[in-house]
Amino acid sequence: MDNWLPTLQTETPSEGYDLAVKLARMTIKKTQTDAAIRDRLRPDYAENADSLIAVSAVVATHFATISAANGYWARP
Amino acid sequence: MDNWLPTLQTETPSEGYDLAVKLARMTIKKTQTDAAIRDRLRPDYAENADSLIAVSAVVATHFATISAANGYWARP
Amino acid sequence: MDNWLPTLQTETPSEGYDLAVKLARMTIKKTQTDAAIRDRLRPDYAENADSLIAVSAVVATHFATISAANGYWARP
Amino acid sequence: MDNWLPTLQTETPSEGYDLAVKLARMTIKKTQTDAAIRDRLRPDYAENADSLIAVSAVVATHFATISAANGYWARP
Amino acid sequence: MDNWLPTLQTETPSEGYDLAVKLARMTIKKTQTDAAIRDRLRPDYAENADSLIAVSAVVATHFATISAANGYWARP
Amino acid sequence: MDNWLPTLQTETPSEGYDLAVKLARMTIKKTQTDAAIRDRLRPDYAENADSLIAVSAVVATHFATISAANGYWARP
Repeated sequence: MDNWLPTLQTETPSEGYDLAVKLARMTIKKTQTDAAIRDRLRPDYAENADSLIAVSAVVATHFATISAANGYWARP
Repeated sequence: MDNWLPTLQTETPSEGYDLAVKLARMTIKKTQTDAAIRDRLRPDYAENADSLIAVSAVVATHFATISAANGYWARP
Repeated sequence: MDNWLPTLQTETPSEGYDLAVKLARMTIKKTQTDAAIRDRLRPDYAENADSLIAVSAVVATHFATISAANGYWARP
Repeated sequence: MDNWLPTLQTETPSEGYDLAVKLARMTIKKTQTDAAIRDRLRPDYAENADSLIAVSAVVATHFATISAANGYWARP
Repeated sequence: MDNWLPTLQTETPSEGYDLAVKLARMTIKKTQTDAAIRDRLRPDYAENADSLIAVSAVVATHFATISAANGYWARP
Repeated sequence: MDNWLPTLQTETPSEGYDLAVKLARMTIKKTQTDAAIRDRLRPDYAENADSLIAVSAVVATHFATISAANGYWARP
């Protein structure tokens, strides 16, 4: 897990969004280090509307950061 | 889903808001990839006031990002 | 609903706040398009302290965006 | 309620914080316009730790906006 | 409580973090002015994981504001 | 705990993310100072999907701050 995040810069907004999803998930990995427990928890949120919305909120915050880091991928 | 988000720039604030809604929904699609389960979950949030407010919070965060990306569509 | 949001610029902070309330509500309209269901849900949040606080959080995020869009209505 | 928010500028951070509290409360007034219902709801949040924390979150977002609007009251 | 917040500037990030904690708590004091009730509520959040995480979210928002106010305590 | 946070600057985004996790946890330590109670609470959130998502939200906010503090570790 050493340098799992070498940069916040991405080529496109789509890739930036994927990175935001990755950043959101990483906290869960770092807080619950037991992969078996994480797998057991997956249906708790993946089949629950409110949990999915909560994940979406975290991704939104990270996407804001990544978008700023990329100058909003502004067209020249 | 490759390049589903080519740009954060939109012509108008209204279009920017619609894009924010799209960004909010995309996390759910990426986290729960089974469309049948997503359809089953829909009434859980679409007919629940607190869930709708939570969706609105996610959209607000994305709209902030998109607004910044568009220079707040400032009048010249 | 085409161009319901022509601009983020308002004359005063009060009007900016009202616009933030409008932006918060718009997600609910766009997610739950059935007005009858929305009306039925109204007491669920309008008579519930935690729901009202959650609405207030969404408005706060939108108000931040609108305030930035207006240069915080700074006195010259 | 016409021009209840003439400016975001305050003399001190303390006054800015009070304004943030006011902004957080205003959404509740605008969403639940019946003062009697609001009074009835008051113990629901004022005697509930999680509700108070949620109010604090809203104030934090507004305080961020107001602080930016005041240049963080920077010492010259 | 008059001028309890004279400045957002602190010498170090650690002090800035403590100030963020103070700002988070102040809303609770201002919303629930009865110290006896506040004391009674304390175990409700101090011994509840989700409440503690919610407090942490509020502190995070205030810490963002204070960090910006201090130019992120940038090394020259 | 005196100067536990000497700087917000880190060498890499990965280290910045770890610092964000640390900042999120610090509020819990400062609010619940009894380590035995904290240990007892750990399974409440480490084995609960919604709690883990909530932790992730706090980390996201701190990561935004730290990323800004580091100029997004922009490549020259």
